[in-house]
Order: sequence, then structure tokens, then C-alpha cells
Amino acid sequence: MPKYRRIVLASRPSGPVTPENFRLETIDTPAVADGQFLVRNHYLSLDPYMRGRMNESRSYAASQPLNETMVGGTAGEVVESRHSRFTVGDQVVAYLGWQEYGLSDGTGVYKADTTHLPLSAYLGPVGMPGVTAWYGLNRIIAAKAGNTVVVSAASGAVGSVVGQLARLAGCRAIGIAGGAEKCTYVAGELGFDACIDYKHEDVAKSLKALAPDGVDGYFENVGGEILNAVLPRMNAFGRIALCGMIAGYDGQPTPITNPTWFLISRLKLEGFIITEHMDVWPVALRELGGLVARGKLRYRETVAPGLENAPAAFIGLLKGQNFGKQLVKLV
Amino acid sequence: MPKYRRIVLASRPSGPVTPENFRLETIDTPAVADGQFLVRNHYLSLDPYMRGRMNESRSYAASQPLNETMVGGTAGEVVESRHSRFTVGDQVVAYLGWQEYGLSDGTGVYKADTTHLPLSAYLGPVGMPGVTAWYGLNRIIAAKAGNTVVVSAASGAVGSVVGQLARLAGCRAIGIAGGAEKCTYVAGELGFDACIDYKHEDVAKSLKALAPDGVDGYFENVGGEILNAVLPRMNAFGRIALCGMIAGYDGQPTPITNPTWFLISRLKLEGFIITEHMDVWPVALRELGGLVARGKLRYRETVAPGLENAPAAFIGLLKGQNFGKQLVKLV
Repeated sequence: MPKYRRIVLASRPSGPVTPENFRLETIDTPAVADGQFLVRNHYLSLDPYMRGRMNESRSYAASQPLNETMVGGTAGEVVESRHSRFTVGDQVVAYLGWQEYGLSDGTGVYKADTTHLPLSAYLGPVGMPGVTAWYGLNRIIAAKAGNTVVVSAASGAVGSVVGQLARLAGCRAIGIAGGAEKCTYVAGELGFDACIDYKHEDVAKSLKALAPDGVDGYFENVGGEILNAVLPRMNAFGRIALCGMIAGYDGQPTPITNPTWFLISRLKLEGFIITEHMDVWPVALRELGGLVARGKLRYRETVAPGLENAPAAFIGLLKGQNFGKQLVKLV
Repeated sequence: MPKYRRIVLASRPSGPVTPENFRLETIDTPAVADGQFLVRNHYLSLDPYMRGRMNESRSYAASQPLNETMVGGTAGEVVESRHSRFTVGDQVVAYLGWQEYGLSDGTGVYKADTTHLPLSAYLGPVGMPGVTAWYGLNRIIAAKAGNTVVVSAASGAVGSVVGQLARLAGCRAIGIAGGAEKCTYVAGELGFDACIDYKHEDVAKSLKALAPDGVDGYFENVGGEILNAVLPRMNAFGRIALCGMIAGYDGQPTPITNPTWFLISRLKLEGFIITEHMDVWPVALRELGGLVARGKLRYRETVAPGLENAPAAFIGLLKGQNFGKQLVKLV
């Protein structure tokens, strides 16, 4: 019987995630029933939201069950099929989790056209992170030409798209990232107007210097102290799209120290989960795919080789050690 | 030369407002020039936003200048006029500040029809507080029948209208107020479904019991600990209208301890100042006036007699000692 490897959640973290929270297992490859197909996963997507799923407490999605395959987006190839719409050789984007193979009945799976785009892009700028950026910028921040837009985790899979789309829309884009290398990438290769290195700069001070006329839109990927530094710089009627709260995932939320700013500056803040806005995916993916194919939207990937390296890569992601989209390459 | 009395800002508060921050003065009644009219103020409106104006720091409006008449809404009668639209005997709502008389060129002044409504109602449910409630409930919370709406400072000029409008829209209305007397009024006379006495109850616990299915809309008049207690009870896609932050006015903002809720529950929070939404005033005032005239919208006033009592009444308002709309009656 053919076998493959998967990673399950072994225990829930109390505090920071550790390698012991995961367990690598070898299991039997399941038989493909009528209406199903088997996918060999080429790439796993690692994303901050997975941290929330690891908690038992109420989160924005169901908890990841213990001893079951870690959830997550995947991109791979159909290797066996008894399904009418999917045939062997199809490249597909799916949600099969941290495992080398996965069985599907086609729900939520779509084919990836790799003529002009590499398969992995469908887990990055032309996938969930890209659509997240698109939605927050266009639907919540509602960025207009001339606006100043700030984004945290600016070199990441979401943040990098936010700033580039903002630039394309005629906005000033200011990134916040950790370390000189990431900042050089953001302001150089990605073409942001500026990037603040939160590890070596006083964010509030740098933001005042870089955005003397204030900030109209803030795309929050991180939470915590950066939000507190940005709030006082927000212009009247500023919009904050709240997409991530990494700083709070370890059970130690960072308070918003002075919420009076929401009133003083009549701010709007909105949290969102992109999978609840499926209506925008087609239009967003079409736009993002076109931009990537034409070289107008750049991205970077950090690729961990082999399933066994997924836990360490994920822990690194939570600490901001990745550079761009964090993937695990299985094939 | 006729004289009248006014109250000026003598000094800016450092911490809580004290009577010494104000000064009562007697000044000459100004001559009425062409295009102007003189109003004898019958009522002054005292409102929490005035606290923000007393600070020098950037607030949601220009600072109240030192040694000038304290700003504020007024209702009174035209006693002398060289203006084409206003004649002696007209009842008018204006923004003439803490003084017994005031000169106007008509800007922002409107006539009050007192056939079916008392003049003072134009400073309460059929004035700025009423429109504030209307806007937050209809435009930000966007309350729908069946929703559960919570409002803090529920017996106050704004909160009392929020809950009653919510009930009229088919919502469940839960008030939060300080003390048994206010709560009895809110749940009894005003007809809210329930009222939580934050001085004697654990708000989080009571809210859980009273809103077992969660909260869809929260109208925030207070800020501080009550917001922290309500946040975890908000349903997915809940809306928070942020209208007041009394708790923060004394320079001691109360942090939002766990902003992760905004993401977990995909909440929207929006701060607003009603004078920036003048487009809604006509429709809101028409609706509110009709409801008050037909006895469908109840309200209560706390009336301080005489200009000299305005500072003490204002300090009491900031401490929640008023009951309903706080007015100063001059005539």
C-alpha cells in the first residue's frame, strides 16, 4: 500500500508555538472513490492565520482539531482521478493541508493556469494573500489617488501587494518592515515610496517625517505597538483595514493604548477574513494575475524544502524570519 | 449701556475639570449691526464634547480659546433684529455659547417650531443629541429588525434616543447606565428590553446573560472599561458606533485591552462627529420631531437654573450626575 507523510497538530501552544506542537506521521494513501481525485501537493502555503486555528479558544474560524492534518492552502497536480471535472495532470489550487498528498471531491478547488504564471504564485500574489491585499485596499481603505497608505509587514505576502497596488492606484505607499534588508527590498525592488525599519527606527517619529500630511489608510498585518504608533498619524476619516494580529496570537494581546484617536480623527477600523468575501475573488484574481504576468506586481518567496521543515518554517514566519511568501516545497 | 453675563474659559484643565477653569464675567451688550440680530438665550446645552474643546491638544474640533465665551448650543428668542430672515419673537436654535445674550448673522441658526414641541427639545431629542443617535444607529450600526443593540450612557440625551429608535426598528435594546434609578428609568419609562447598572453589576457577566446570542451593534458613548466588556460579546460582523469617550477626556485614555476581537469577530468600529454629517439633519430631525410630538420618543432633562451654575452642571455631567439631557435655564 502506498504511503505518504503528513503533519498533525499534536498539542495546543501555551505561549509561543514550539516544534513539539506538531507531529510528523506516515499514513496510507487513501483509495480514490467515485467523484474524487488525488492530488500530489507541490507547495504548502504557510500563513499567520494558522496560529489562530491552533488555539482552542473561539477564533475567527473553527479550531484545528488535535491529531488531524494541519489545515492550509496547497498547490499541486492531480495524479489520479475519478472526478468528471479534474483529470490527471491538472495543476490545482486546493486546501489540503500539511501533507504530501490529499484527496478531494473538488469543493473549493480550482485549476491553475501555469502558462504565464508559476504554480506557486497561486498561493501568493495571485492567491489568498493577494486577494486579501486587494480587498483591504480597495474595499475597506478605499484608496484614492493622492492618499498616503501605510502597510505593516510590508515585505510579506500580503503587505508587498498592498503597497504595490496602492502605488498603481496613485497613492503614496509607506511600508513598515523588520530589518534593513527587508526595507531595502520594499523601497527598492517593490517601489514603495519609503519603508520604516521598526527594529531600528522609532516608527512614530519616522512616520511623522515620511508622512508630514498624515496617513489616510493603514493596512494592519501585525497589530500591537505598530498600530499604536500609526494611530496618532491618521488623518481625519482615515480607514484601517485589520487583516492580521500576529502580535496577539500568542495569547498576549497588545492593547490599543489610546482609542480616543478613533473619535478625534473619526477613524474607521474594520477586521476582515478574506474567505468570507468570495464574491471579490474572481475580479481580484484576474487583476492580480494580469499584473504579475506583465511584471507589474513583484513578489518574493521563502521556500522551505520538504514537509518535515514545515513546523520550523511556520515558527519562523510568526517571528518574521521569512522574506515574502512562506512556502514549503514538497516536489 | 445694557450688560449681560457670560462664562469664559479661564484655564485649561490638567486632569478633571474644576470650577476654577471657568470665569463669570459681565460685559456690554453689543450693538446690533445691519444683517445681525440679538438673541436672548433661554437654554444652554451642556454636552460631553465640550470637554475635548477645553484641551489645547489636537482634538476633533478647534480648541476653545482662553478668555473667550465657552462654546455651546443654545435655544432662545430674538429680541432685536436688523436681519431680513429673523424677526423679534422668533424662537431660534443657535450656537451662541455660555452667555445670556448672543449676536448672530444667522449662520447655522434655525427657527424652532414650538407648536408641538417645547423649545428645550431642540437641544435634546430633536437636536444634536437626537441626530447623533439617529446617525450612529442608522448609518453606522445599520440596525436591522431582530438585531441586539447595546448602548452605554443609556439614560443620557444620546443613549436614550438610541435605544428607543432601536426598539422602534424592531431591535432588542440593552442599555448600560450608572445606578438603579437610571436603570429603572431606561428599562421602565424608556422601554428598553433591559438595562445593566455598571456601578453595581459585572457588565460582561450581565451582558452574557441578557444577550445570550451576542450583540450586533454597540453605540459607544463612554469608552473605557465598558467597551472592553462589550467587545467579546460582539457577534461576527458587529458594528460599533463611537460617539463619545468621556472616560478619556481627562487625559487618561482607557486602552482597548484586546483588539484581537476586531479581527476574530470581523468588527467594524467608526468614530463620528455629527456636525460633519449635516446632510442627514433634515431627515433625522423630521423623524425625531414627529416621534417626540406623538409621544413615541421620551426624554428627560436635568435643568440647572442660572448661568452661574453652568460650570458645576458641566462638571456633574462629566461625572454622570445628570439624568437625561443637561441644560442650563437662563429665562
